[in-house]
Amino acid sequence: MPLEDVYRYVDANQQMFVDDLVRLVKQPSVSARGEGIIECARIVEEMMRNVGFSTFTIPVAQGNPVVYGEIKSKSSQKTLLFYNHYDVQPPEPLEEWTYDPYSGEIRNGKIYGRGVSDNKGNIVSRLKAIQALLETTADVPVNIKFVAEGEEEIGSPHLAPVVQKHKKLFSADAAIWEFGGTDREGRPIIYLGLKGVLSVELRAKAAARDVHSANAPLVPNPAWRLVWALNSIKNEKDEILIDGFQDNVESPLDEEMEYVQKIPFEEEEEKQDLGLSEFLHSVSGLEALKALLYRPTCTINGFLAGYTDKGSKTVLPRKAMVKLDFRLVPRQEADNILKKLKEHLKHHSFNDIEVIEHGSTEPVKTPIDNSFVQTVIKTAKRVYDKQPVVYPTSAGSGPMHLFRNWLGYPVVSVGCAHPESHGHAPNENLTVEGFVKGTKFIAAILYDFGVS
Amino acid sequence: MPLEDVYRYVDANQQMFVDDLVRLVKQPSVSARGEGIIECARIVEEMMRNVGFSTFTIPVAQGNPVVYGEIKSKSSQKTLLFYNHYDVQPPEPLEEWTYDPYSGEIRNGKIYGRGVSDNKGNIVSRLKAIQALLETTADVPVNIKFVAEGEEEIGSPHLAPVVQKHKKLFSADAAIWEFGGTDREGRPIIYLGLKGVLSVELRAKAAARDVHSANAPLVPNPAWRLVWALNSIKNEKDEILIDGFQDNVESPLDEEMEYVQKIPFEEEEEKQDLGLSEFLHSVSGLEALKALLYRPTCTINGFLAGYTDKGSKTVLPRKAMVKLDFRLVPRQEADNILKKLKEHLKHHSFNDIEVIEHGSTEPVKTPIDNSFVQTVIKTAKRVYDKQPVVYPTSAGSGPMHLFRNWLGYPVVSVGCAHPESHGHAPNENLTVEGFVKGTKFIAAILYDFGVS
Repeated sequence: MPLEDVYRYVDANQQMFVDDLVRLVKQPSVSARGEGIIECARIVEEMMRNVGFSTFTIPVAQGNPVVYGEIKSKSSQKTLLFYNHYDVQPPEPLEEWTYDPYSGEIRNGKIYGRGVSDNKGNIVSRLKAIQALLETTADVPVNIKFVAEGEEEIGSPHLAPVVQKHKKLFSADAAIWEFGGTDREGRPIIYLGLKGVLSVELRAKAAARDVHSANAPLVPNPAWRLVWALNSIKNEKDEILIDGFQDNVESPLDEEMEYVQKIPFEEEEEKQDLGLSEFLHSVSGLEALKALLYRPTCTINGFLAGYTDKGSKTVLPRKAMVKLDFRLVPRQEADNILKKLKEHLKHHSFNDIEVIEHGSTEPVKTPIDNSFVQTVIKTAKRVYDKQPVVYPTSAGSGPMHLFRNWLGYPVVSVGCAHPESHGHAPNENLTVEGFVKGTKFIAAILYDFGVS
Repeated sequence: MPLEDVYRYVDANQQMFVDDLVRLVKQPSVSARGEGIIECARIVEEMMRNVGFSTFTIPVAQGNPVVYGEIKSKSSQKTLLFYNHYDVQPPEPLEEWTYDPYSGEIRNGKIYGRGVSDNKGNIVSRLKAIQALLETTADVPVNIKFVAEGEEEIGSPHLAPVVQKHKKLFSADAAIWEFGGTDREGRPIIYLGLKGVLSVELRAKAAARDVHSANAPLVPNPAWRLVWALNSIKNEKDEILIDGFQDNVESPLDEEMEYVQKIPFEEEEEKQDLGLSEFLHSVSGLEALKALLYRPTCTINGFLAGYTDKGSKTVLPRKAMVKLDFRLVPRQEADNILKKLKEHLKHHSFNDIEVIEHGSTEPVKTPIDNSFVQTVIKTAKRVYDKQPVVYPTSAGSGPMHLFRNWLGYPVVSVGCAHPESHGHAPNENLTVEGFVKGTKFIAAILYDFGVS
């Protein structure tokens, strides 16, 4: 079978592939502060061209460009789209890195650097899988669309209008999402969904200036207003009290629970990593995993009011703000939740509190029985020679709904990270072994999808 | 009567007095950051010596020195103590000052500078009143003790042990407190009490590090913990729900209310100054004034958790803190309230919340019918030729209880500020006229107390 040639090509060219990944890692691309974005987009486009893609860059008004490429198959009508992002999280705190975050240092079989696992390793791995197929078979098994956006790490604020405007460009029969890897036992992990997220900021104001707290009997305190508003939104049992918040929330389906039960949830490792003796409300085992994957949440991300330096100051602050995110599950909709939040505040007489939206994505899921999902599961089992771990959905979020819900095709997330890859954290890394294996996995998915 | 000679001396030497005040204002003495403290203490001590005080400096372990001085009377056994502070608030925001805060600029009859009204003007005014008495009568009407501490603006954290250790030094028959002035009609204001204040910080911690908010179903959120704890402490009606918080709270006495009713409460000016269309809970008039003077309060001074910069960040913070002050009224005690707060948190299962005390002072009051109070009221009426405004207590706080409660003598607060003196704010100022009149007022109090 031709895949053996492909694998041989990958093994033979491993060093070249790693060199390309190191080159991409050395280029900073921090979307949070617009650092190195254009330079990085150019490198990605150049790498795509070198593989054989016809490429172009979709400019984004007041945002970072989307790099786009296509390769036509000579043998198939099917199309597979890869969603990637070339931007990375800020590398701080720098002092916690053993090597420079933009060095691409390789030690003990691990490549270190900001973005190497999230998501530059997958970008290069996917391009190299396609290159290997082209070089060994002079064709690709299906038409390929390759998308790399530059704002994933800041919530993809401009991707929706781009997809909306260029629906045809983004049409496909299936897609591979940006993240994934193997677990501690080396089992490949396959993710089939995401929670949605709605990020908001609540702001309260009262007096014209900070006043002496001796005036407290007469002057409203915006920090107290936010405390009471928040308390009306969620109680100590973590029950979200917004009227209609739970409306339409879909319970985990039976066929999903079958897979959830098989997930080897590394509970003790998780707790140790988080520095917790137990999880919230003492949940554990399957109950904890179910909460993680299926419970909508409301999180205080930040709160700021008044004097926050050393010691005390008898000040009554003139303003206060809190940042919240709501994680949403299937059948909840971000816009609807925002509307209900506003109604809730109005109904509870918090008319003095302003609600600012900082972006949202929708909950999204591809059914396990989808034929593309089944293909990927089978391919994973064959390539890794281990039973894959299937997450019917995941706790994270991203703009997957634009593809799955708007354009209507199945989306599966796989990649080449490992449990200690430290995405978003210092000493982010990828093993060369995981990178190479992940490259073969992508080639095999393309092949199997072509013949399926 | 000899006071006429004293007044003439004050008028004749007005320029010299103002020069001394300007000299003191030019010396920064910001206790919040230990700026110019020792230099300022030395100038005050030198000024006291020049008047005729025998002085010394009481060193304060890990704190700012207390400058102390005495002058014996040849004709009286009575002793009057003056409590002052030579430290000032930080001058920031600097850009809002018309003149340099340490320039002592004089324009249109006003002396400008940080500390000129709070409390350096009163320090110099009092010293000059004593000087005038000594120069014109070769005696002082009563024994005088003059205290200037260096930490009032940071809550007098080290004064209690100093007073405790040197009880004899601070013993007296009556005391004049540090602040006061005239109202918009030029009526002298006499304050007879203060609220207490208890400053605390509540801290909550959970995970070992900030985590991605996708983990919200499993990881406790310290910011939410504080929100719920705060909500259990005070409800939306501003009712403080700590068990026993209201125990022993003394209602305003009938004789106090007689005076409170006479206070010309400048409600509209206050609202306008604060930028409010109405006061908290729509109180107004006598009800508002009564709340201001007699209601114990709980104020959020500051709140900090997680990400507080622009936009959104899906972070679940590992720690959160809130700073609170409780303003206390007669028969409440700071230590007791702190104990009750801790019990409250324990009782409501907030064992994860740490309580840190940042200092306290007790509520304090001198009865209106006290003979020294009556003397000061009469003296004020004569000197200003206007009915004085008597506040049986005030909304502010300070270490007055060390003198009034521990040492047991009456304490009355008068001074030479005016309603636009802007204490603690940019463009702090004192009118030369108010300064001179206040100096005569102090001389008259000393004289009247001597013959009373």
